[in-house]
Amino acid sequence: MVIGKVIGTVVASRKEDELVGLKLLAVAPIDLRTGQVKDGGVVAVDSVGAGVGEVVLYATGSSARQTTVTQNRPVDATIMAIVDTLEVGGEVLYQKD
Amino acid sequence: MVIGKVIGTVVASRKEDELVGLKLLAVAPIDLRTGQVKDGGVVAVDSVGAGVGEVVLYATGSSARQTTVTQNRPVDATIMAIVDTLEVGGEVLYQKD
Amino acid sequence: MVIGKVIGTVVASRKEDELVGLKLLAVAPIDLRTGQVKDGGVVAVDSVGAGVGEVVLYATGSSARQTTVTQNRPVDATIMAIVDTLEVGGEVLYQKD
Amino acid sequence: MVIGKVIGTVVASRKEDELVGLKLLAVAPIDLRTGQVKDGGVVAVDSVGAGVGEVVLYATGSSARQTTVTQNRPVDATIMAIVDTLEVGGEVLYQKD
Amino acid sequence: MVIGKVIGTVVASRKEDELVGLKLLAVAPIDLRTGQVKDGGVVAVDSVGAGVGEVVLYATGSSARQTTVTQNRPVDATIMAIVDTLEVGGEVLYQKD
Repeated sequence: MVIGKVIGTVVASRKEDELVGLKLLAVAPIDLRTGQVKDGGVVAVDSVGAGVGEVVLYATGSSARQTTVTQNRPVDATIMAIVDTLEVGGEVLYQKD
Repeated sequence: MVIGKVIGTVVASRKEDELVGLKLLAVAPIDLRTGQVKDGGVVAVDSVGAGVGEVVLYATGSSARQTTVTQNRPVDATIMAIVDTLEVGGEVLYQKD
Repeated sequence: MVIGKVIGTVVASRKEDELVGLKLLAVAPIDLRTGQVKDGGVVAVDSVGAGVGEVVLYATGSSARQTTVTQNRPVDATIMAIVDTLEVGGEVLYQKD
Repeated sequence: MVIGKVIGTVVASRKEDELVGLKLLAVAPIDLRTGQVKDGGVVAVDSVGAGVGEVVLYATGSSARQTTVTQNRPVDATIMAIVDTLEVGGEVLYQKD
Repeated sequence: MVIGKVIGTVVASRKEDELVGLKLLAVAPIDLRTGQVKDGGVVAVDSVGAGVGEVVLYATGSSARQTTVTQNRPVDATIMAIVDTLEVGGEVLYQKD
């Protein structure tokens, strides 16, 4: 999985039927060694009630479809968890308020 | 999924039988933080009636085959939605006319 | 899928039984915005009778196994089509002779 | 698979039900030619009792779900082994104490 | 598939049961246009009796599990063939002795 920060939202009215009702969030990856947001990013389906500004864990590829919300849907990135703490090298890089 | 802009079209007369009838579009990824087109890109199958110049959402890998149009076909990138709005950091980076 | 140019051939006599009889081609990706060959590339199985010098479309990952030729074989890149025309930004970047 | 070093831990209380009970570790890839930690990295599920500081082997994609611990779960990176020795070019780059 | 050179070996005594008995090799990718070893690389399972110094073809992702040796195992990279000849641009870049 990748740790990322939810940086935005995507709205799309014309879409595959199987995407209807899914919340689409823009997520930027976080550097595991500095805790800073990096370049790149994906649009992920939310399965845990995440919101803009939160640090999350998302899975990609076929693993993104192994949830009740995304099963058999054309989804290749899904937010699986909201991160409470990221600790690297004995240091807390991120702590949810 | 990836947000990209449809920048062109691909025509191929000699191809796998399972690709016959699919519309092939060249799509360049869009930087989620600036809204600008980036280097790279893929040729994706269209499943929503997208056209050149539109901003779209596409899925890759096995997820690209989870649509009625692409089921069991040798397709690894499919356009799933036409984007109306991309909002990042509280700012609208893209808004469909 | 990726647009690439067939730049060479690979011969391997000691191999998995499931690869016997498949034609292996070296393919370099083409930049969708300039039409030029880029760094990188893969060894893909040919399913459409492509030859060195041709511009082709190849699929990767599990999608590469969704053809009669590659079904259930340990193949992660398959040439699916020979490109006739690549048009980007209203300009023809490549046209097969 | 990728050789990496476990550099940290991730705690997430709000998450997909299928992730409950799994240990999440931050892993940075190791350069196979120098033995040094590189940029990048993933959050992987531990299936072998690995700890911070250990050098491990992890699998990604659907292969990450081919273990008893991760079967059918939304997991795209799993630590599969703890490395004892990495030998490259006739030189021992890493040796577990 | 990717052409790479076997540059080393990996030993891991504590590992997933499904990995027991598999030979793990460090493989660095080869640039298809120069024939030189590049940065990066993976740890791949050997299915053809490859050894250090040999040039091989390996598959990644779910395709790496489509062999008798790796079926249903948590393996995401498998050596599928030993390369005899790599010919690019009409020139022989590599020829096995």
